[in-house]
Amino acid sequence: MAVGKISEGSVYYDKPSKINNFLSRKRMKPIKVGLLGLGTVGYGAFRVLARNQEEIQRRAGRCIDVTKVAVRNVERAGKLVDGVCEVTDNPLNVVMDPEIDIVVETIGGDDPTLELVLKAIDNGKHVVTANKALLAVHGNEIFTAARKANVMVAFEAAVAGGIPIIKALREGLTANRIQWIAGIINGTTNFILSEMREKGLDFDVALQDAQRLGYAEADPTFDIEGVDAAHKATIMSAIAFGVPVQFNKAYVEGISKLSSIDIKYAEELGYRIKLLGITRRTDIGIELRVHPTLILAKRLIANVEGVMNAVLVHGDAVGATMYYGKGAGAEPTASAVIADIVDITRLHTADQENRVPYLAFQHDALSSMPVLPIEQIRTSYYLRLRVADQTGVLAEITRILANQNISIDALLQKESREGEPQTDIIILTHETQEKFINSAISCIEALDTVFSQVTRIRMETLS
Amino acid sequence: MAVGKISEGSVYYDKPSKINNFLSRKRMKPIKVGLLGLGTVGYGAFRVLARNQEEIQRRAGRCIDVTKVAVRNVERAGKLVDGVCEVTDNPLNVVMDPEIDIVVETIGGDDPTLELVLKAIDNGKHVVTANKALLAVHGNEIFTAARKANVMVAFEAAVAGGIPIIKALREGLTANRIQWIAGIINGTTNFILSEMREKGLDFDVALQDAQRLGYAEADPTFDIEGVDAAHKATIMSAIAFGVPVQFNKAYVEGISKLSSIDIKYAEELGYRIKLLGITRRTDIGIELRVHPTLILAKRLIANVEGVMNAVLVHGDAVGATMYYGKGAGAEPTASAVIADIVDITRLHTADQENRVPYLAFQHDALSSMPVLPIEQIRTSYYLRLRVADQTGVLAEITRILANQNISIDALLQKESREGEPQTDIIILTHETQEKFINSAISCIEALDTVFSQVTRIRMETLS
Repeated sequence: MAVGKISEGSVYYDKPSKINNFLSRKRMKPIKVGLLGLGTVGYGAFRVLARNQEEIQRRAGRCIDVTKVAVRNVERAGKLVDGVCEVTDNPLNVVMDPEIDIVVETIGGDDPTLELVLKAIDNGKHVVTANKALLAVHGNEIFTAARKANVMVAFEAAVAGGIPIIKALREGLTANRIQWIAGIINGTTNFILSEMREKGLDFDVALQDAQRLGYAEADPTFDIEGVDAAHKATIMSAIAFGVPVQFNKAYVEGISKLSSIDIKYAEELGYRIKLLGITRRTDIGIELRVHPTLILAKRLIANVEGVMNAVLVHGDAVGATMYYGKGAGAEPTASAVIADIVDITRLHTADQENRVPYLAFQHDALSSMPVLPIEQIRTSYYLRLRVADQTGVLAEITRILANQNISIDALLQKESREGEPQTDIIILTHETQEKFINSAISCIEALDTVFSQVTRIRMETLS
Repeated sequence: MAVGKISEGSVYYDKPSKINNFLSRKRMKPIKVGLLGLGTVGYGAFRVLARNQEEIQRRAGRCIDVTKVAVRNVERAGKLVDGVCEVTDNPLNVVMDPEIDIVVETIGGDDPTLELVLKAIDNGKHVVTANKALLAVHGNEIFTAARKANVMVAFEAAVAGGIPIIKALREGLTANRIQWIAGIINGTTNFILSEMREKGLDFDVALQDAQRLGYAEADPTFDIEGVDAAHKATIMSAIAFGVPVQFNKAYVEGISKLSSIDIKYAEELGYRIKLLGITRRTDIGIELRVHPTLILAKRLIANVEGVMNAVLVHGDAVGATMYYGKGAGAEPTASAVIADIVDITRLHTADQENRVPYLAFQHDALSSMPVLPIEQIRTSYYLRLRVADQTGVLAEITRILANQNISIDALLQKESREGEPQTDIIILTHETQEKFINSAISCIEALDTVFSQVTRIRMETLS
């Protein structure tokens, strides 16, 4: 039996003739791919397709050729693709090219991306995109157009980068009634939270570290304010529950106002604070929310640190499953984009009705379960109060909570510093509805023994 | 917009007519499923299909009907299926039934299972099985027959139960040159190891706990000796590297000889011991091995406790990804079986060449990279020696290791107990080849200052 060094990509076969005749067989024509954009994601996909072409072809059964790339800077792109494919500065040359089977959109944003994606679809191209913002906002329009044109739209890279979470939700867990999903789906904020906890840094300092290391953009708003995570949670929510994408209904709260003292107190109580994208099915509708969340430190997902992502999915049959990996970066994202390309080469000959539906559920079987306003969600809470260090204060506060039928799970009163008339009280509540906690907080803040605002952070048991 | 209680499975739609006309549409004929066996897995699949049929149909686009079940005890099965489908005591009535599209094998073992599966294939049935033993040993024969008959064979449930790891390896990571896989893929042994560590129990006691709780069988040999894990590792190895299944080449070592003192010493050094199924691509061949393994306690996978499973996969583009969930049980396994059934309904109209290959790689593009004998694998080691508490002993031992070019990463010498002339020495080595450690150990055991055998446990950095 032939044995060979395979680290350079050369592989030996029982009969060497086999692989040659396999690689050269003309039986199946190559799949032609056009790239829109050659930035981090676009060039990452181009590079990985080139490096692993033999391995990918041995799986897909046919050659995947990038035949055309549309970019702003033709000269720079020309150097990168080095004559392997045509380079144009006009994206229409890609989306209208009759030779191209699959258009891969890596431009980002929605202008002119939406228009280009719709044009590609109208021209009968299958589309692969990593653009969560586009799908979370314009997904329904795009999927409707794609169904009419009988083409596929794949977007594994749009959520959690290289982790095949869309495939797991859409195909791996089809047997399940999915009950909830909770994910660390933004690496920038997870890195900042890890830094704040491990080094006791304040948010601003940790953010600067993240920017210096290239984990946060010059304008980090989309990441730190939770918008990026909400785009991803919106897409997972639609696929999990068979509802349209409805980003405008999502509750979005970032980490920019999070204070390091709360991370410290949470740790003292055995918890870690993570920015979670959460979507849950309830009797009255769907919860769809992104916010800092206390999680028991012993939970596996609480130990996902740095820029890593992880998504916890709970189905009625399978129970809890978790998917962990890199949520961003050129090659992890490329890994997801290429998986979509291979999926399309596999499914494009199947009847449309037998393909995987865009949102996991058949277009005419979507549910109209409403997304609940945040006041109607149910969870437990961490409250931090600055109070006068005198008798009776705690009695007043607990009475207010009792009046709202909020029961206390744990309470931590910090010793006031030498000669200080004020002290911190931390309260962990049992599950209640957000509107009750809101009323309780406003009553508590009205007490003249309570100073400054009450800090409120949501908690999840994830069990 | 209609809002409704959905916990009982009733879902509301924008136009109630929609769902009715969707559920009742005759356009797509139901997929007919025949079950071989109605035990834990078989009845689990039957139950979940019934409970979630509406949700599953909204995804699959068509009805999935179990039309026939073959069992030993017809009376018992009759009560379970309660008239929903036909019950027979002759499996041939299922595999030969011209009406049936998919045969789901849940009998286990290989006699008469292999014969039945091949008969079903010859009769043009697609096959779904959870039978890792069957596939790890007879997989090549089964897949060859299936290709000739132009049918699919799906086996998500064969590895890590409800975790969609086969789908991740075969489809989610197609862009990657997979470098290695390391998995906790046997819940029984992971439960026993957790008990031994958390409660300081000896193996025999922990095994009895597992048996009392139903996590270990009356004859636990297959689990505790690593055979079950090796079946699963063999299947993952084939899919990851595009090689035939070759269980007979796997190195298999269980946990029955593991002593609680080593778990204790490992913890003192910052490690945990897990039974890992490992397969790795090297320049000279493939490593395929199952054995107790020291892992740094801070690694996420080291914190997977109890009966839970987790598989860590390293690809060149995506980096490390991990998949976590329940590896056994009626409904988690059913979740995987049903996902396979839905996949088949989606792909059965695609050209065979465009379907997902049985082993992830096209049949004519498999590699003949050899599986390496254990002496040729490279890893690092934990060694425990019982030595005379006198000067010079350590010098002799370190000289022997140096002679084999084995460098020491850490060394722990325990204080000998009051008046005891012997003491324990624990050595952690850097990476070396197994044959060098073997020579070193035999030299060390020959020293008259070393008592009893040297305990050797392999270590993995998983980075």
